[in-house]
Amino acid sequence: MPANPLEAATAASVTDSSRLRWFVPDAYIPPTSTAPELSHESICVLNRHAEAATILITAYFADRQPEQSLPITIPGRRALHLRTDMPDAIGGLRIERGVPYALEIESDTDLQIQYSRLDTTQPAYSLMTALLAGAHVLA
Amino acid sequence: MPANPLEAATAASVTDSSRLRWFVPDAYIPPTSTAPELSHESICVLNRHAEAATILITAYFADRQPEQSLPITIPGRRALHLRTDMPDAIGGLRIERGVPYALEIESDTDLQIQYSRLDTTQPAYSLMTALLAGAHVLA
Amino acid sequence: MPANPLEAATAASVTDSSRLRWFVPDAYIPPTSTAPELSHESICVLNRHAEAATILITAYFADRQPEQSLPITIPGRRALHLRTDMPDAIGGLRIERGVPYALEIESDTDLQIQYSRLDTTQPAYSLMTALLAGAHVLA
Amino acid sequence: MPANPLEAATAASVTDSSRLRWFVPDAYIPPTSTAPELSHESICVLNRHAEAATILITAYFADRQPEQSLPITIPGRRALHLRTDMPDAIGGLRIERGVPYALEIESDTDLQIQYSRLDTTQPAYSLMTALLAGAHVLA
Repeated sequence: MPANPLEAATAASVTDSSRLRWFVPDAYIPPTSTAPELSHESICVLNRHAEAATILITAYFADRQPEQSLPITIPGRRALHLRTDMPDAIGGLRIERGVPYALEIESDTDLQIQYSRLDTTQPAYSLMTALLAGAHVLA
Repeated sequence: MPANPLEAATAASVTDSSRLRWFVPDAYIPPTSTAPELSHESICVLNRHAEAATILITAYFADRQPEQSLPITIPGRRALHLRTDMPDAIGGLRIERGVPYALEIESDTDLQIQYSRLDTTQPAYSLMTALLAGAHVLA
Repeated sequence: MPANPLEAATAASVTDSSRLRWFVPDAYIPPTSTAPELSHESICVLNRHAEAATILITAYFADRQPEQSLPITIPGRRALHLRTDMPDAIGGLRIERGVPYALEIESDTDLQIQYSRLDTTQPAYSLMTALLAGAHVLA
Repeated sequence: MPANPLEAATAASVTDSSRLRWFVPDAYIPPTSTAPELSHESICVLNRHAEAATILITAYFADRQPEQSLPITIPGRRALHLRTDMPDAIGGLRIERGVPYALEIESDTDLQIQYSRLDTTQPAYSLMTALLAGAHVLA
């Protein structure tokens, strides 16, 4: 049994090909912001089921190995908007601003997930969003 | 037979797993606006069929039980843009501004649905949109 | 044989349930613009096939009967960005600015279609886009 | 064997109908920009597999023959954000600013791909994005 929970989570996911996975190939936390809103991304997760669900997030980069979060709990019948610039919200992952990356979210539960970005680099909001389609893919 | 129509609608939906459902995990009515446009969301529904269709909307939150609308009628061969900040347009639901939430729309009819948000918090429009894919999921 | 080409097109489509259809429930041409760009929508169509394809566009409204375009030709191996504020580009349809509506595009050919809107109501661009998934639905 | 690698790539792809293809019907590099960010598009590709993958990009236009890139390598377990205004990033294709076009991306590997555009024509960012769904279509 790995002592490091990050390694344990990774080991569990790579041997289990029946999980659902969602992807955000264009992930990016803009490096600058204007007041009053901080530039940020949100992973918005809806769990319609009565039972709590668990997700794992993997961040992929252009030039180094991926990193995986600790398990994140989504309570039953609840909707959470998880900000990627808040490590406590995304299972301890620390995402650097200004670095292009990609996101993978995995779960045993059929969840509803949407990704959005608010860019306040310039003194006017800019928003983008994408609904993610979960799929069973080989781990 | 429940006296409260909200309860009646809920009871009908949870026992019926053959309905179509559409989801918006990232729903949010921006708290502030600049003139002349109010920040708002729209649930845009196209009913291509000759007969009227009925939808129910459920709002999910981070920290409390979901709420469900009264039935909403979409006339046949018509397209409605329903604003979530207008309770009369969405079956009596009262959505508070500035609160992250999620939307579920359900119907017995194969409809075409799109979600869009206009954010006028700063003196420049920002738009985002997502086409929703209906699915048969367990209630 | 109907003398009015609009009626002929409608008659052909309603009796043919094998065609592919794409939908934009949230269609809207913003009523105002700031220089130098006019607020507009585009229906972007890619025809990867060697042969030309034909599309028909139907506009649906909140309070009146739908209207259908004349046939529009998309040459083989070409990509067209059709602006909805230019009747010549969309088979003679005249879409009024500031009126919420919905779009249906139909074809016998497997095309790739995307819808985008540029809103220049305020002195800053705002863009939104959606990839459309074609489906075989009953006419 | 063709001496021109572009022709070789084209020949390979048109005889192979088992490849996956992704499409961006609305591609466009805005002609103007305001400091400090250049208006640009990105094709964001996530390769979750251990092995490197290869993609080919085809650009389609309104009034001339399509053009195809040289093969582009996506390393295993990596995510790349490829800018369409940088020929070295997209296999030698030179896309002119201000010209509406469309993109096709093809690969033998099941990749995750997203398209985004940043428009800085006016002194305020505008973003749009679309997740692409890969499909097996006839070449």
